[in-house]
Amino acid sequence: MAPAPLSAPLRGVAWQGGLDDGELILLDQTRLPDVVEYLHLRELEAVRSAIIDLAVRGAPAIAISGAYAVVLHAVATAQAAGAGATSEALTAALAAGSARLESARPTAVNLRWALARMNACYQRHVGHLTALEMCARLLMEAKRIHREDAEQCIRIAHFGATLLPERGGVYTHCNTGVLATGGVGTALGCIVQAHTQAKHLQVFVGETRPLLQGARLTAPELAQAGVPVTLVCDSMAGALMARGLIQAVIVGADRIAANGDTANKIGTYGLAVLARHHGIPFYVAATTATFDPTLVDGSGIVIEERHADEVRRPQGTPATVADMTCANPAFDVTPGHLITAIITERGIISRPGPSTVARLLGAGG
Amino acid sequence: MAPAPLSAPLRGVAWQGGLDDGELILLDQTRLPDVVEYLHLRELEAVRSAIIDLAVRGAPAIAISGAYAVVLHAVATAQAAGAGATSEALTAALAAGSARLESARPTAVNLRWALARMNACYQRHVGHLTALEMCARLLMEAKRIHREDAEQCIRIAHFGATLLPERGGVYTHCNTGVLATGGVGTALGCIVQAHTQAKHLQVFVGETRPLLQGARLTAPELAQAGVPVTLVCDSMAGALMARGLIQAVIVGADRIAANGDTANKIGTYGLAVLARHHGIPFYVAATTATFDPTLVDGSGIVIEERHADEVRRPQGTPATVADMTCANPAFDVTPGHLITAIITERGIISRPGPSTVARLLGAGG
Repeated sequence: MAPAPLSAPLRGVAWQGGLDDGELILLDQTRLPDVVEYLHLRELEAVRSAIIDLAVRGAPAIAISGAYAVVLHAVATAQAAGAGATSEALTAALAAGSARLESARPTAVNLRWALARMNACYQRHVGHLTALEMCARLLMEAKRIHREDAEQCIRIAHFGATLLPERGGVYTHCNTGVLATGGVGTALGCIVQAHTQAKHLQVFVGETRPLLQGARLTAPELAQAGVPVTLVCDSMAGALMARGLIQAVIVGADRIAANGDTANKIGTYGLAVLARHHGIPFYVAATTATFDPTLVDGSGIVIEERHADEVRRPQGTPATVADMTCANPAFDVTPGHLITAIITERGIISRPGPSTVARLLGAGG
Repeated sequence: MAPAPLSAPLRGVAWQGGLDDGELILLDQTRLPDVVEYLHLRELEAVRSAIIDLAVRGAPAIAISGAYAVVLHAVATAQAAGAGATSEALTAALAAGSARLESARPTAVNLRWALARMNACYQRHVGHLTALEMCARLLMEAKRIHREDAEQCIRIAHFGATLLPERGGVYTHCNTGVLATGGVGTALGCIVQAHTQAKHLQVFVGETRPLLQGARLTAPELAQAGVPVTLVCDSMAGALMARGLIQAVIVGADRIAANGDTANKIGTYGLAVLARHHGIPFYVAATTATFDPTLVDGSGIVIEERHADEVRRPQGTPATVADMTCANPAFDVTPGHLITAIITERGIISRPGPSTVARLLGAGG
C-alpha cells in the first residue's frame, strides 16, 4: 500500500466507479515526491479545497477535476431530490456549484472553460431528461473532457517535439506533465516525446519556488521517463543560457489572451526575457482551452496572490522572521511578442499575435 | 544568553582580546534569523571551515576573517617556536596558512587581496622583528583592514545613496549589509543610507536560493533598520519590474574584472538582463578590494560549484528525490556593459569598461 515514490507512472486525476458510487481520485501533489497518496473525493467542496490547496494543480488537471466535481454535485442533488425528479431539480445546485468551483483559483481559464462546457451540456438536455439521466449525461461529458485533454496532449507532444533541437539543452519551469493534465502533459509531453524520438536532450528544470513543483514533480517525472535532467534554482537560468547550455525554453500556460500574451507560473516572464536576450527560442505549449479570446491582451488577466507563508516558509520551515511582508503572485504574464511559438493540439502558432491566434482558434473551433 | 533574534544590531566579524588570548568572533550566519550564536575561533582551520560552511560570508567579511585567521596562525606558531624566535620562524607557517585559506572559496577575490596584504606586511618587517613582535604587527594590519573596510562602506553608502531615487522601489539580492562586511555594508549600506536621508524607498529583496541569504539575513536586517521591505522569491523580479514597481537594482560583488564584468551571487546576471530590458538602472556596490585587475574580463573568474544538496534540500528538507542531478553554481558573471555604475569607496564608475575602471583604480591606488 506504500508504493515506492514515483516508481511507477502516476496519474493525477481519475474517475473511479459508476454514477451512484463514483468518486474522483486525485493524487495529492502536495506530498510528492516523498509520499504517494490518493485522495478519494465524493463532494464538490472537497474538490474545491483540493484545488485551492494544490493537491491537484495544472490548468488542464484542474479543469478536469472541476468537471468531475460538477458530476459529484449533480448526483448528490439528484439523490436528495428523489427518484422521480426531473433535470430541472439540478438547475440551482449546478449554478451554485459552478460558481464555487470557479472561485477556487482565478488565473487559469481552463477551469472556467470546463465549467462552461458542463453547463452547456446541461442546457442542451434540460427538459428532456430525469435528474439521474442528466447526471449520467454530465458524467459522460466530464469523461469526454478528460479524454479529449489526453488526446490533445498527444497531439501537442508531437507538434512540440518537432520544434525541439536534435541535440542540446532545454529549460522548463513548473510542472506540465502527467500530473498537470489528463494525459502526457503539455510542455513536458513535448520534451518526453522528443526524447522518445531519440533527440539528445539535456533538460534543465527550474525548481519553481515558492512551491517547488519543478523539484518535487517535474525533475522526478523526467528522471523516471529516462530523460537526462538537471535540477537548478530558478535564479540559475541566466547563467545556464550565458554558458550556452540552453537551446530552447518550453513552458505551459494558465491563460492565453487573444494576442498571445500568456499567464503562466511566476518566473516564466523572466525566462522569456532571458531567452530573448540570448536569442533562444521560447515556446508555450497549451490546449486551445487555455485561450481566453475575451481578453484582447494579458492586462486583463487576474493574477492570483497566494499566502505569504509560501514565501516565508519554504516547505513549512521558516526562512525569515515570522511577520515579514512578502509578495506572492502565483503567475506572471509573458507578452506574446516574446514567445517564439505557441504549440496547441490544432497546430503551432508562430509569432503569436492577434491575427495568428485568431486564425488558429477559428480553425476547427 | 538567548537574545531575541535580530532584536539588536548584529556584527558579523569581531576581534576580541589581545595577542595571547585573542579570538575571532563570528556570528554564525547559517543559523540566522532563528538563532543568534557567535563562534569563538582560535585556529586558522576553524576559520577556514567557517568560511567554507558560510558561517561567515560576504566577500569583505571573508577577507577580514582571513586576515584575522593569519594572526591566529602566526600567534600559535610563534608560541610554539618559543620566546626567542625571530619572525623568520613564521615564514613557512604563514605561507601554508595563507594557501589553506585561499582555497576555501575560489570566486571572491577580497580574501586573496587581504592575504596578499598580510603577506606584504610580513615581508616588510621580516628580519627586523621577533616572532611575537611580528604577530603584534600582523594583528595591527588585520585590524586596519577591518577598520578600512568599515570606513569604505560608509563612503560607498554615501556615494550610492545619491544614485537611488527619491521615491520608488529598489530591488536587491543576497546579503550585502552589516553581516557581509566590516561595516554598514555595500549595496545594503547604500539603501539604508538613502532611507536615513529620508528617501522613500520600498525595498524588494530576492530570497536568494539556494541558501536564502535574502530571506534569512537581508530582509530582517532592513526591517530592523526601519526600511520598508518586501521579501519575494527570486523568480518574481521580472513581474515586479513589468508592473513598474522597481526603479533601481543594487547588488554587491565578489570579484570585478578590469572591464567591469562582475561576479556576484547566482541570479545577479538574470536581474541585470531584466533591468536592461525594462530600462531600470543596475548598480553594483563594492570596495576596490573586490577588483581583480589581473583579469581582462569575467571569463577568467572561477565560479564555485557547491554541493547539490543545497539545491535538493532547501533548509535541509528534501524537495526532490535524493539522487537528483543538480547544478549549483554559487555565482554568475554580469557583463560590465549591463551595469549602469559601480559604486566604490573612491567614487562612482559610470558605464563600467576597461578605461573607466582603470581610471578609478589608478586614482589613489
